[in-house]
Amino acid sequence: MKLIRFGEAGKEKPGIQDKSGINLDCSSFGEDWNETFFSTSGLTRLEEWLSVNQANLKEVPLNARIGSPIARPSKIICIGLNYRKHAEEAGMAVPEVPIIFMKATSSLCGPFDPIYIPRSSVQTDWEVELAVVIGKRAKYVSVENAYDYIAGYCLHNDVSERDFQLRHGGQWVKGKSADHFAPLGPILATKSEIPNPHNLRLWLKLNGKILQDSNTSDLIFDIPTIVSHLSQYMTLLPGDVISTGTPAGVGMGLKPQPQYLEHGDIVELGIESLGISRQVAMNDPEA
Amino acid sequence: MKLIRFGEAGKEKPGIQDKSGINLDCSSFGEDWNETFFSTSGLTRLEEWLSVNQANLKEVPLNARIGSPIARPSKIICIGLNYRKHAEEAGMAVPEVPIIFMKATSSLCGPFDPIYIPRSSVQTDWEVELAVVIGKRAKYVSVENAYDYIAGYCLHNDVSERDFQLRHGGQWVKGKSADHFAPLGPILATKSEIPNPHNLRLWLKLNGKILQDSNTSDLIFDIPTIVSHLSQYMTLLPGDVISTGTPAGVGMGLKPQPQYLEHGDIVELGIESLGISRQVAMNDPEA
Repeated sequence: MKLIRFGEAGKEKPGIQDKSGINLDCSSFGEDWNETFFSTSGLTRLEEWLSVNQANLKEVPLNARIGSPIARPSKIICIGLNYRKHAEEAGMAVPEVPIIFMKATSSLCGPFDPIYIPRSSVQTDWEVELAVVIGKRAKYVSVENAYDYIAGYCLHNDVSERDFQLRHGGQWVKGKSADHFAPLGPILATKSEIPNPHNLRLWLKLNGKILQDSNTSDLIFDIPTIVSHLSQYMTLLPGDVISTGTPAGVGMGLKPQPQYLEHGDIVELGIESLGISRQVAMNDPEA
Repeated sequence: MKLIRFGEAGKEKPGIQDKSGINLDCSSFGEDWNETFFSTSGLTRLEEWLSVNQANLKEVPLNARIGSPIARPSKIICIGLNYRKHAEEAGMAVPEVPIIFMKATSSLCGPFDPIYIPRSSVQTDWEVELAVVIGKRAKYVSVENAYDYIAGYCLHNDVSERDFQLRHGGQWVKGKSADHFAPLGPILATKSEIPNPHNLRLWLKLNGKILQDSNTSDLIFDIPTIVSHLSQYMTLLPGDVISTGTPAGVGMGLKPQPQYLEHGDIVELGIESLGISRQVAMNDPEA
């Protein structure tokens, strides 16, 4: 299945995308795609419900806003420097174990919402990433069993303010957490839709020019390793998001000089089988 | 007011502590002390409701478990190295701006629940801290207006695994996020109960021996500065927790040698006007 959510920000309704790419309204299922849904075998229940009801579902209006495909999770955890060339462009060593950091979950937004350039930002940057969504509570999970705890996969732009992240004191979370810094989706593709998550092309364009273009086969730490590793340090809850790291080609690493987002810039990104998202950068209207 | 929550973990009921220290069951108010409550003027509504109904409330059974005084928030943000002597004992420079990091919100537990020593832990440590609870959405807040965004204050033990935090690669969140690493409470004292949060004694005992004993007057960055600073980088949501840092006397800093929690150790801690909590350290039963 491919889950979507649509409608006004903060009041999204649940839906699915069918095999022909049409978005269908699942409001009558009576649940949101959230922690409770995933923790109560929601995916199995939804599949059974769809086998009876899908033919009667209304199409989502084509002009509806598309939201994050899942409701705000308990955590958004990111893996740092998980592609070799990106570690090189960032001037950092290739890690020996997964580097993890958090994004505030308040940064979550829809895949076509604007990226807000925060007040005082000078280095707002992009990062196309494959995100994993957890399907059931995961603690001290082995690498061998890690797939059992995965609900599915999403496209994620791990928007990052490099000056905040690296030169404002302290930990990376400062540069990862502004509003609209986590455009997620358009879809959550369930595990069965993606037989091999380690062979997916991922790419990002800025104003039509391709800047990131890689494949998840280049991940340093693969998905089972990441899920197992994280679950040794904290309990992963259903609906939690793990973003697996970005390949080379972020603004910070561009030659001959770095480049960052400016008001009006257009970012498009995609991952094979997980769709395409598009964000226009704009100065935060609250700034 | 002093808010409490009581009952089985994950199914806590809301209550208050009255002026004589008796816990009263507020289930009939029909809400939990969570993000929705705080974001809909819950404190004002509760106060009005209590003026009519308090005399009829049942006492909480004395043997009831006390939970975290607030439901799981969207974020637990901590301030690092915010007492001068603690920065010294940690062998780190006194920061020029607030250092921030996150704890996974899944680490939240009640003030008398055990501390679970995680699998493979060798350096589980304690940190008594004053925690601030946010009362309304805060973004780009000035230092002058910061108190407007505060609901109240709690006692917090920012339990930390030093080996995970400092030597497992990456960011501090790895050592801050295990289950039961955030015993919060017993009470949330609303802002009006604490006229001056910058003159509160805070202390911690290990097996009856006092190891931390300081005063919030020693904070390097005061509470309005912290709230304002954080709100430049991320939006603080109602119910969010900000833990303001720990004074000297953590296990990592003890002379002649560091000391860490072992199965059976008893940790007691307190802050003036915010009550006392007590945790027994035990090996994680799931490890």
